[in-house]
Parts: sequence; C-alpha cells; structure tokens
Amino acid sequence: MLLEVAATPTAGNVDRERDLPDLRFEQFLAGASGARAGLEEIERGGPIGQGFETAVAGMADAAGTNTQFGSLLLLAPLVRAVAKRPEESSEQLGPDAASAVVAETTVEDAAAFYRAFEHVEVRVDEPPADLEPLDVRRGADAIPAVRDREATLASILEAASGHDGIAREWTEGFERTFDAADRLASREGPLVDRATRVHLDLLAEEPDTLVATEHGEATAAEISDRAASIDPSDGDAVRSLSSDLIERGINPGTTADILAGGLFVTLVREGGKP
Amino acid sequence: MLLEVAATPTAGNVDRERDLPDLRFEQFLAGASGARAGLEEIERGGPIGQGFETAVAGMADAAGTNTQFGSLLLLAPLVRAVAKRPEESSEQLGPDAASAVVAETTVEDAAAFYRAFEHVEVRVDEPPADLEPLDVRRGADAIPAVRDREATLASILEAASGHDGIAREWTEGFERTFDAADRLASREGPLVDRATRVHLDLLAEEPDTLVATEHGEATAAEISDRAASIDPSDGDAVRSLSSDLIERGINPGTTADILAGGLFVTLVREGGKP
Repeated sequence: MLLEVAATPTAGNVDRERDLPDLRFEQFLAGASGARAGLEEIERGGPIGQGFETAVAGMADAAGTNTQFGSLLLLAPLVRAVAKRPEESSEQLGPDAASAVVAETTVEDAAAFYRAFEHVEVRVDEPPADLEPLDVRRGADAIPAVRDREATLASILEAASGHDGIAREWTEGFERTFDAADRLASREGPLVDRATRVHLDLLAEEPDTLVATEHGEATAAEISDRAASIDPSDGDAVRSLSSDLIERGINPGTTADILAGGLFVTLVREGGKP
Repeated sequence: MLLEVAATPTAGNVDRERDLPDLRFEQFLAGASGARAGLEEIERGGPIGQGFETAVAGMADAAGTNTQFGSLLLLAPLVRAVAKRPEESSEQLGPDAASAVVAETTVEDAAAFYRAFEHVEVRVDEPPADLEPLDVRRGADAIPAVRDREATLASILEAASGHDGIAREWTEGFERTFDAADRLASREGPLVDRATRVHLDLLAEEPDTLVATEHGEATAAEISDRAASIDPSDGDAVRSLSSDLIERGINPGTTADILAGGLFVTLVREGGKP
C-alpha cells in the first residue's frame, strides 16, 4: 500500500505529486501503517473477516478517513494465502492459493465484513431489491439478514462482482491482480516506476468500477479509453490526464487497489524489497 | 518516520519531490515499515539495545540500505518512555521520562548497539585514540572492549555527543527533539507542512552533524547560515537551497532524524493522526 501511493504519476489518484482536495498523501501513509495490525491478525491465522475489520478500523483511525478500504479487501485473502504456504514451499503465491482462501470464508467472516462498514464511509452502488437487506450501507444492522441467509463472505462478494472490481477479483481468481504482478515482474527498473506504467495499463484495459459507481459507466469507459490512447512513457500526457480527472473529481480508486494487490504479490515473489 | 520523509520540501533530504542519486523515496517507506518490529519489541518492554538492533536489521533488510539509523536511535528511548507511562496518566511525553530511559541503559544495550552496525554502513567520525577500541565501525568486534570497560549505551553515546547530534539528544535530555515538537504544536495546518517549516528552523539553528562528519564543520556551518537566511514561507528559496545541496552531495540527515523524533512526540501528544 505504501508503494502504491508512492508510484507517480498515477492518473487521478493521490501520489507523490498530488493530493486530492480532501485527501492528502500522508493520510495514505497513516492508513497503511494503521491497517497493519489487522493484516497481521490474518497472517497469524485469525478469522479473515475479523482481521479485515481490525485493519479497516486501524486505517480509519490513523488516516482519519477511508483511504484504502478496497486495497485491504483485496490484500486480506492474499496475506492469508502467503501465510498458509508450507515454510519450505518454493511454490509461488498464485490464483489457486488465493481462491482457496476465498472458498473457506464463513458467515462470521461476512458479519465482520459488515461491521467494517461501521468504521468508514464507502461509496457503493444501490443493491437490487432482493439484496436490499444485505446492503453494506446498513453496516452491522445487516448481520441478522446475513446469518439468516447463511451468506459467507465469498457469496456476499460474488453478488457484488458485477459492479465492484475488488469483489470481482475475489470471485474470478484475482485475475487482474496476478496479471498486474506478472507485468510488474516483466519490466525493468525501480518497482514504483514499473507500477506507474502498470497503473495506466490497468486503467486502459477495464473501466474503473469506483468511477462507474460515482460518475456512471459512460464516464468510466471514457476515462479508460483516454488512458488507452496515451503513450505510457509520456509522463506529461499522464500528468495532463491526471489533472483533468482531479479537476472533475474523478478518482480511479479501484484500479489503484488492484495495483496495490499486484505490488503485494510482487514483493512476496521478489523478496520484500522495493 | 513516514511523516518525516513526506514533509516537502526539506532541503537536501529525500522528500516527495526528490530522490537522491543512490537513495529513493520508497526506500524510506520500506525502511520505516521494516523497522517496526524492533520498535514494537521496545514498546513491549524488551531490552532497548536489542530492540534497536532488530529495528536496524529490519530497516536495512526492507530498504536494502541505511535509510534511518539515526531516527531509530532517537526513537528507541522515546518509544520506551511512552510505553512506560501508566495507562491512566495524562502526563505528556517529556524530557524527564525520556532521560529516565537513557539512565537505565545497560552494558548489554551497548553490546546490541554495536551489533546494529553489522547490518548497515553508517558514516561516523574517527574516534579519539583512547576510544579506538570502542569505534562503532568495529561492530560486534568492539563488544569485548565494551564489556571490559562496563560501558552502558548511555555512556557510549555520551562519549559521542560532541560530534553527533543524536548522541547529544540522548545526553542532553532530547532538548532539540522536544523543542521541535513544541514548534510543531505551535503552528497551524497539516502536520507535514508544519514539519517542513520546523526542518528549516532546526537546520538554521545548529549545523547538521552528519554534514560536518562528511564535509567538515565549515560546510555544515555554511549550510546552517544559508538556511537561516531563507524566508521559510518561500518554498522556491527552500527548493533552490535543496537543489544546491543535492548537487554538492550534502545531506543534512541528522536534522531530518531530529525532525522525525519531534514528529513522533507530536503524534503521541496529538493522538496519532497526521
């Protein structure tokens, strides 16, 4: 998460060159630091939902706002997948290990996931009518319905995967996350510079679902098309897109979350150094 | 430590706007993250020297180089002082509590301090002849001499306090660190912006001892005078000084370490949010 916010320029997102009007760079540093205890709970084998809630609460407490909810939701199963590997294993962290963690999630993990929404404001789509009792904006009030329907965290996220890019990662084997990691590995140079390039690739490939939620699918598609039209080695073009997005209040936050997941996988595979 | 590197511009140091030729911004993020386990050992009541060594080893492992040795040496007693306060205490973290930690250091803390030098390259002055057996550049090889002379960590740092700004903090009640914290508290605005201003104040007030070690006392005094001549609200003037320092390979690292200490005290006093 620290490397993600250090990657610069990342169009429309907070980076070394830019703060957003209501979100400063150092709040992301604080959020990453505050989330650590929760991720360590997951690493030690604690319930993934509870660890996620602890991470979100710690992030919100340190940052004073919601900085990295989506990144944490993506990292939670990846952290567990790494921790579960046999110590001697030379096996790489991959989709099978991550999906196995998803498959093991429980109703209690789902309940903790709903509690996590009590700590922060998260922008989400309106749910369809039959899922209204499970609307995440209900926070802990939705937990009786979660228990009633015996909904696991995996099933909750599967229901959201049509319109939320992180839920889609949980449901579809973390395809974009591992793809981002493969691209990061295939490039040369400092990891944050590789990350800047991969951020633009990701944005060009698929419309950002946070942008779609906040500004509509047409806007999300437009931003993705513009990202695709830019020469990624042209820093000024990326900065110009970034300025335009920030002026319009458009923040491709889901794309940044997926990059954070890809960076985590890369750090695990490459041995932890930036 | 994260907030210190985020404070921008800080003349001659790595910040959001600048990397040094051989030291990148994200290495400081990694160093701060990697040092955490050692500081947590100290927080939990483990021996301060051992915790410091763990922090330095974790920093060096994550950053791949020495990013924040001086900051960690300054933070170690402050972290312990905070952890020792009675839970109900409304007492502020202050010089007395920090100096009490220094007074309690042992010969074993000194031995661990020497082991810490095995993990990194630290630029230090030549010791006087009678202290040659205690030259930190000997690393663990100096430990028999440390034991032989029954030298505590406090006494080792007292001997270095004439030419090392962090050792002087240990010896003189962390005067500049708490002074930096008071100044940070007296200003308005985001903490990192206040920190930028205080960094220049600190540099103007006393020549940086790392600069003196690397480039001589005359150069250190010249840099301090130049910092004093700048209007701190003139970001361009600070940037121009910064460019000049970086071009000459001059890095006021001790001043940055003292700022990191002041930021830690401020976070403790203000409740942990940036």
